[in-house]
Amino acid sequence: MKQRLDKAGVRFRPHFKTHQSWKIAEIFSQEGIRQITVSSVTMAHYFARQGWKDITIAFPLNLREMDSILMLPEDVTVGLLISDSSTASYSFPKSLLKKSVFWIELDTGHHRSGFSVADFHILTWVIDKLCSTGAHLQGFLFHDGHTYNATGIEEIREIRYNTLSRLSLLREFLSEKYPGRNFLFSGGDTPSCSQELPMEGIDEMRPGNFVFYDLQQLALGSCQPEDIALSVLCPVVASYPDQGRAVIYGGSIHLSKDKLTVGKETIYGVVCSEEKQSDMRLTFPGDLPFLTALSQEHGVIQGTAEQILNLVPGSLARVIPVHSCLVVSNMKQLVSADGTVFETLNLHSVDF
Amino acid sequence: MKQRLDKAGVRFRPHFKTHQSWKIAEIFSQEGIRQITVSSVTMAHYFARQGWKDITIAFPLNLREMDSILMLPEDVTVGLLISDSSTASYSFPKSLLKKSVFWIELDTGHHRSGFSVADFHILTWVIDKLCSTGAHLQGFLFHDGHTYNATGIEEIREIRYNTLSRLSLLREFLSEKYPGRNFLFSGGDTPSCSQELPMEGIDEMRPGNFVFYDLQQLALGSCQPEDIALSVLCPVVASYPDQGRAVIYGGSIHLSKDKLTVGKETIYGVVCSEEKQSDMRLTFPGDLPFLTALSQEHGVIQGTAEQILNLVPGSLARVIPVHSCLVVSNMKQLVSADGTVFETLNLHSVDF
Repeated sequence: MKQRLDKAGVRFRPHFKTHQSWKIAEIFSQEGIRQITVSSVTMAHYFARQGWKDITIAFPLNLREMDSILMLPEDVTVGLLISDSSTASYSFPKSLLKKSVFWIELDTGHHRSGFSVADFHILTWVIDKLCSTGAHLQGFLFHDGHTYNATGIEEIREIRYNTLSRLSLLREFLSEKYPGRNFLFSGGDTPSCSQELPMEGIDEMRPGNFVFYDLQQLALGSCQPEDIALSVLCPVVASYPDQGRAVIYGGSIHLSKDKLTVGKETIYGVVCSEEKQSDMRLTFPGDLPFLTALSQEHGVIQGTAEQILNLVPGSLARVIPVHSCLVVSNMKQLVSADGTVFETLNLHSVDF
Repeated sequence: MKQRLDKAGVRFRPHFKTHQSWKIAEIFSQEGIRQITVSSVTMAHYFARQGWKDITIAFPLNLREMDSILMLPEDVTVGLLISDSSTASYSFPKSLLKKSVFWIELDTGHHRSGFSVADFHILTWVIDKLCSTGAHLQGFLFHDGHTYNATGIEEIREIRYNTLSRLSLLREFLSEKYPGRNFLFSGGDTPSCSQELPMEGIDEMRPGNFVFYDLQQLALGSCQPEDIALSVLCPVVASYPDQGRAVIYGGSIHLSKDKLTVGKETIYGVVCSEEKQSDMRLTFPGDLPFLTALSQEHGVIQGTAEQILNLVPGSLARVIPVHSCLVVSNMKQLVSADGTVFETLNLHSVDF
């Protein structure tokens, strides 16, 4: 990912919400990454404690967390998102303006949060408002999260082209309205960053999920099966080969309830050994047993009698999840293939 | 719930996975409850530390947690589930047999885990197997979890009648095969316990969700709107009245992704004040704004312009969740209307 962005001349500001681990963050640091993205103030504190100095909180500024933001170490520059006009009108304390840089969030089609990229009138108002308060405005931040609902690479490509053309119109307007003034444009989402797509006019990218990938990204064409680097080892607690069913200790509190439609079936994961992973195909019924139901602690696996016979109570089923970010946020630590333990924020979250 | 079960002469063994709080557990204790249900060994430890002595772990015995079960205090009787023939054949350590009582899990139609209630042949084999090892067999445990997928009270009633008639056949068989021997029957699930349904031949019930209820139970007819005792106060972080949309700091990591279909819409919660709660109706579009999308930290609320105008950034949206158990399992504490703080297992989970 870094090589691709370096080549395009785009700054890489990886989103650390996917791994939430200071030790994995160190690997990024060794690659020369100094700027990062997080999704909460808590996460900003966690990484600030590990020495990260330039942190964008890619979530609409929560006015109720002002005190917590102010408690970030003095030498940390925190990037904050202004996502609606009500928050833009807020009287920010001077101490906040001093330590923060601001981004105006743009809605480029995801329709979750942010100002419409086409509404120049309101955008002008927000820019002027922020600058009049002495805010240090970096530019505009967008997240093309609708790529996650795409049916494949072609649709992801279309979304990128669409966004680029809208941003280009905005940039044209800004250069007339604010001549000589430089606004940065920060984009995100792993699906569009996982393709060789044009990035004209984008200054930085904030993908996160690529660090592990998952079934959702595989289905989108963002990765190959062997790129998926996260699995959950779940104890098998009951096995019914004659019914083609096994039960694991791995429910919605561990795996989350993100799902994927494969054929006509809804799945929550695939049971796959390391050896078979590169041949994994998302077809149903397929060569591998699928996780087809989740309760709070139970996960139900469906497969052929032969597949289920391998899932003996007391053994571990290696489950590849639908959405790796949500799995990690439930875990206290990750263990790599060589046995290295990677603690996550969740282990320490009591402190914040 | 206690009054209803007392009246029916059925032992009340509430499931504590819904609240996971020692202080809420004390309220049950004050009502004379001594026997409880939990869904994990971790939870058994948590409540054992608070002095609970009779704990059923209503989850298939996980052979990999044997050591942790053995570390439960000596004076705690732990109920364990045998849910498949592979686990039934296991050579249990003597120390485990000494401190545990066993339940054979029956599948009465939910098709998640347990032996088919109609398979007398295998059930006989399991009973003999367990008794030959010196296990203290209490009887049979079932969970009619398929009531959660029911379309209403009538279907819940049907499920109960169905289960009772299957259990009656099993009891008949057992009384012939094992004359004079007493087997207990333990049932669960809040929907069927929330109705005035027959309980003939059921010795104990293990409902849990009734302690808070939620939108799922409301939709099933298990409770009235004013019975729902759990809501999540989520900070509003962006508001777009003209688009009928607001964004809260409350995503799938807080609310979980359990959903409900209302009309043709999928919802993850309702925004409702205390004052309006008793009039809450599950119709879409309705009188209240609905939570219609969840990302990791974002929740998207849809409503009329007027409703959204009330959701000002910096204020709190009171969200009634679809599934209260999963919300609590994400929280570290609950706060009651009078300000009392109820810590949950999650706050202490690092210890186990």
